[in-house]
Amino acid sequence: MKPDIAAVGSIALDTIKTPQAEVQDILGGSAVYFAWAASYFSKVGITGVIGPDFPEEYLKLLSTRSINLDGLKVGDKTFRWTGEYGENPDDRKTLSVCQDVLENFNPELSEEYCSSDYIFLANINPKSHLKVLSQIKGSNLVAGDTMDLWIETEKTLLLKTLRRIDMMFLNESEARQLTNESNLIKAGRSILSYGPKTVIVKKGENGVFVLGEDILFSIPAYPQETVRDATGAGDSFAGGVIGFLAQENGENLRKAIVMGSVIASFCVEDFGLRRLEKVTKEDIMGRFEEFRNLTRF
Amino acid sequence: MKPDIAAVGSIALDTIKTPQAEVQDILGGSAVYFAWAASYFSKVGITGVIGPDFPEEYLKLLSTRSINLDGLKVGDKTFRWTGEYGENPDDRKTLSVCQDVLENFNPELSEEYCSSDYIFLANINPKSHLKVLSQIKGSNLVAGDTMDLWIETEKTLLLKTLRRIDMMFLNESEARQLTNESNLIKAGRSILSYGPKTVIVKKGENGVFVLGEDILFSIPAYPQETVRDATGAGDSFAGGVIGFLAQENGENLRKAIVMGSVIASFCVEDFGLRRLEKVTKEDIMGRFEEFRNLTRF
Repeated sequence: MKPDIAAVGSIALDTIKTPQAEVQDILGGSAVYFAWAASYFSKVGITGVIGPDFPEEYLKLLSTRSINLDGLKVGDKTFRWTGEYGENPDDRKTLSVCQDVLENFNPELSEEYCSSDYIFLANINPKSHLKVLSQIKGSNLVAGDTMDLWIETEKTLLLKTLRRIDMMFLNESEARQLTNESNLIKAGRSILSYGPKTVIVKKGENGVFVLGEDILFSIPAYPQETVRDATGAGDSFAGGVIGFLAQENGENLRKAIVMGSVIASFCVEDFGLRRLEKVTKEDIMGRFEEFRNLTRF
Repeated sequence: MKPDIAAVGSIALDTIKTPQAEVQDILGGSAVYFAWAASYFSKVGITGVIGPDFPEEYLKLLSTRSINLDGLKVGDKTFRWTGEYGENPDDRKTLSVCQDVLENFNPELSEEYCSSDYIFLANINPKSHLKVLSQIKGSNLVAGDTMDLWIETEKTLLLKTLRRIDMMFLNESEARQLTNESNLIKAGRSILSYGPKTVIVKKGENGVFVLGEDILFSIPAYPQETVRDATGAGDSFAGGVIGFLAQENGENLRKAIVMGSVIASFCVEDFGLRRLEKVTKEDIMGRFEEFRNLTRF
């Protein structure tokens, strides 16, 4: 099957500690959260690597959705991440991460994946992003995400990927860090000057800010009293955005941003994918209407 | 004249330093910013104290608006505040403040002021707020503002004023400080339990969050590339909100919040009232429409 979206990123086993609880080796990874969220609206193919230790049940779980797993390679071991959150869900500390799994990862996209309408470069090393970019034909819309680590250690390569990325997702502190601009609107304009046509700044509990050639859009976050686990919020947000955009043939970016926000707001209500496993399209449409009511004037 | 709104607060001479510039003894004070903003929509009477040193030109400037100054008392000296901002406009340091002027201030509202539809208790000592509350009849809607200083030093009195305040304005960090709740929605609910029917949380560059019996509303801030001086942003916001509400007979709180945000966004574009002096009602309506376009989906 030719997917609407080809996503490249991590498939992980996460161990997560919060002040309230701890979970071990649950299904996670940037490509997984992205694909799950996008699968509410579109067909997604994942390219990534897992180890022989990767639980069969997680593959089964993913295959219950419109997620194609033909792009999964079995390498030496599965990517694992251990993180700890403080009382504030934005305070995240990485306790351990086996970066080498992804360092050695050489993504190869099938012909079908390469010709999908959307390519999503989930947060992995810009080196891997460039390898993907060298394979695709250029008729696709390319969206990407990154993280503070790559801004610190791989800025030159990251800027190179940005020249070819149409739609860039990054969070508030990363936007400031990347551009050395404290004002977020100025930071957004700088990022546009690096290449992307649209920049989508994730502000956590303060919502999303979008700047582009034809768009200036800002929405607050869904008011959340309980954030149990913020892992995957950014990736499920991006999945909701790109998944909805693909469904709408690239139209309705504003609605897409709200869909992404809605899915991310469900995601953080429990560890890993536990909440999203139970969330239906009707749940999403219901909270979308709540969002309308929240912001209308 | 009976004003629509009676505001009690400071009338000040401010000295302000920012990384770019410094101004001395410009017109400021919580009641002044509030009244100026409210005067776009309603008639406001100010109760407050000035000294014999208060410049005549500032009184003239205020009297060009629908602002009634009969409630101004001339005492020993004018309230002065000196503050310094960092690169981030939210980083404010008070360098000097003559708190004694307001400590000794015994607000007395005329019969007409007491019977105005709205009472606004701008940020001054809760002691003075209680003195005002003891004079009014109870048929008015009472709105109030506060600051970190009073939460630290006068919490008991502040909580006493809250029992009688219908609509409370405070900023994000103050809401957390007052309630010991890090989650802002939970903090808002706690504040409602202290008495107010509506709590309006100001989040600076992240907009406004409103929680109340019949309302859950959130909007982002107007995207501002240049904040020259953030002084008065909160008070001019409250003035816009209450001024518009008074014009609309208490209806349309959501629109009122946006009007307040629009006026505050103009306020910060220059020092003191310099920008607002030039802003017309048409400018406000224009930016209101920009706000609609910013947030619609």
